[in-house]
Amino acid sequence: MDRAKVEVAAEVNSDQVSINVVINVMSIRAYAATEPGGKLNQIEFNPGTLGADEVEISVDYCGLCHSDLSMWNNDWGISTYPIVPGHEISGRIIEKGDLVTNLEIGQKVGLGWFSKSCRNCEQCLSGNHHLCAGTEQTVVGRHGGFAERVRANALWAMPIPEELDPAAVGPLFCGGITVFNPIVISDVSPTDRVGVVGIGGLGHMALQFLNKWGCEVTAFSTSPDKEEHARKLGAHHFINSKDESALKALKYSLDFLLVTVNVELDWKKYIAMLRPNGKLHLVGAAPQISTEVMPLIGGQKSIGGSPLGSPFTTGKMLEFSARHHIAPETEILPLSEVNEAFRKLHDESPAHRIVLKNDFD
Amino acid sequence: MDRAKVEVAAEVNSDQVSINVVINVMSIRAYAATEPGGKLNQIEFNPGTLGADEVEISVDYCGLCHSDLSMWNNDWGISTYPIVPGHEISGRIIEKGDLVTNLEIGQKVGLGWFSKSCRNCEQCLSGNHHLCAGTEQTVVGRHGGFAERVRANALWAMPIPEELDPAAVGPLFCGGITVFNPIVISDVSPTDRVGVVGIGGLGHMALQFLNKWGCEVTAFSTSPDKEEHARKLGAHHFINSKDESALKALKYSLDFLLVTVNVELDWKKYIAMLRPNGKLHLVGAAPQISTEVMPLIGGQKSIGGSPLGSPFTTGKMLEFSARHHIAPETEILPLSEVNEAFRKLHDESPAHRIVLKNDFD
Repeated sequence: MDRAKVEVAAEVNSDQVSINVVINVMSIRAYAATEPGGKLNQIEFNPGTLGADEVEISVDYCGLCHSDLSMWNNDWGISTYPIVPGHEISGRIIEKGDLVTNLEIGQKVGLGWFSKSCRNCEQCLSGNHHLCAGTEQTVVGRHGGFAERVRANALWAMPIPEELDPAAVGPLFCGGITVFNPIVISDVSPTDRVGVVGIGGLGHMALQFLNKWGCEVTAFSTSPDKEEHARKLGAHHFINSKDESALKALKYSLDFLLVTVNVELDWKKYIAMLRPNGKLHLVGAAPQISTEVMPLIGGQKSIGGSPLGSPFTTGKMLEFSARHHIAPETEILPLSEVNEAFRKLHDESPAHRIVLKNDFD
Repeated sequence: MDRAKVEVAAEVNSDQVSINVVINVMSIRAYAATEPGGKLNQIEFNPGTLGADEVEISVDYCGLCHSDLSMWNNDWGISTYPIVPGHEISGRIIEKGDLVTNLEIGQKVGLGWFSKSCRNCEQCLSGNHHLCAGTEQTVVGRHGGFAERVRANALWAMPIPEELDPAAVGPLFCGGITVFNPIVISDVSPTDRVGVVGIGGLGHMALQFLNKWGCEVTAFSTSPDKEEHARKLGAHHFINSKDESALKALKYSLDFLLVTVNVELDWKKYIAMLRPNGKLHLVGAAPQISTEVMPLIGGQKSIGGSPLGSPFTTGKMLEFSARHHIAPETEILPLSEVNEAFRKLHDESPAHRIVLKNDFD
């Protein structure tokens, strides 16, 4: 049965009882585009029956991620319209299915890119739910967080530690875990020297994580004006990545290099910066990577990539963030200004995260 | 002082004592080419003073590796002539420097590609001597194992377990460790499904290691006539790598894929065969690798490479080989037939190792 508010009124009039039943189907108000790159307008939709293993989250805040731009534009050919973007959600549980035992009504939770995984495959069984072939995504074929409420499988609605600011926590569930997971799976050691390429929405969180992880951190950016900000976030060194001689001087100096930009780099130069056993890790969706094989063989180097992270690792990231006061830098706009927010993200590539505050009445 | 045999004879004649001292500098006989790809002829050279941290090894057998072909031809531009190839050596210690405490005269040892590392850099100190920037190679700028004797830093002359056949052990020190080290550093689990691309000198050892490691092993070769042999060596499955549909059917099936060939593959197809978290590992010096980034990100996959292995890992490989009766398949030729051996390796690409037996008188 669809979620509904049922109001029942009874009136007794001498020997007659009159019962009036009003059923309000709890439709969801949201902002949607009806075509690739089209203006987002307010819609109202019926979310259907809540699954026994699902929760419904009242959205307080939702970050605006570069992937929302891509989905809005149908860059990846997987968008369906009308599309409600938004997958960096901070909110509270307002309803849960019968099988949900790990969350309580009223509990503060976050929701990111993934909203479901099968729980039965080898990947799910081994704790790699984010690698499950049966994952569903919050904004692919379902409506996301630029709405008053959003639904997800209870596994992916992650409790938010009390210490974290609900207004800033949303981006951790997408951009945050995207850069935190590589640190974990690449066995980055606190004694390592590491680099972050691209100081934007992802990179500015990576700098904080890697600094608190204990590493010596070098920030790479094509925008020299980001230096002060990068250093404030935890970079010990700042390199203008257009400065060829500065790149050359870093030869054999880094154990781990996290690439957050989605353009092709001069890969040879970046691989040359790695020390023996060094790892280049890609989270920005550049189209291609190509390199000579001998530097990989001779230096025992590797090139890897990863998508977000598992619920377990997300939980560890939240604990780590709470302990070290790590948070994305945010600019809060009302959800009703979502079109202006998209324009800003696209035109200005800010080195912080835009977060939309639910302002439905 | 140079190594020498000193013979002293004294003759007493009435009141006269006549002392005759004969010093034989212990020159080394070897087979050398004087120009790229030129015929190898017997030479004799003076090895100079034995270093305090060096040993001199009497060569019993020496394997013929594809890298010897490359060095002979100066394919990598690092050869000096006359060149004495040979770096898969099995022999016995016949002399040691004053600082050598880990080896005894008469002890059976093997020597591979590396003959020295600095022992002081971060790589050496962390057990990764094979990644030391100061390594010396047995056949680069010094004379190798196609000789009656060869020298090396004592660190790289590795004791041979009693269980291993001295005639077959040489190739483990180069080809063997080249394919064993990736299994260790890639954390291959006995429960993994793995593939080996190229069933030649390297691949035929990789099949044995991975089978005994406990894995489900798939061999890939462009030569269907190698199937029976590959299965005998430990492959559970055999794929003709020219069979496009067979490659396609393996999509998302392998955790680890070891590429031993030195030609460029259709990398996209091989990366597609990897399961989530899968690793493609290169030990064959193909010129380039290029691939789309999204499959790496989406599947949390990686591409790595490595050169041989450390003394520690080499020791573990020898123990493992002794325990599981792993040995390269060999064809023994007399060292004096080194030119014929080179021709065979070049023309016939045998799926075994040619080993030369020292037949100096």
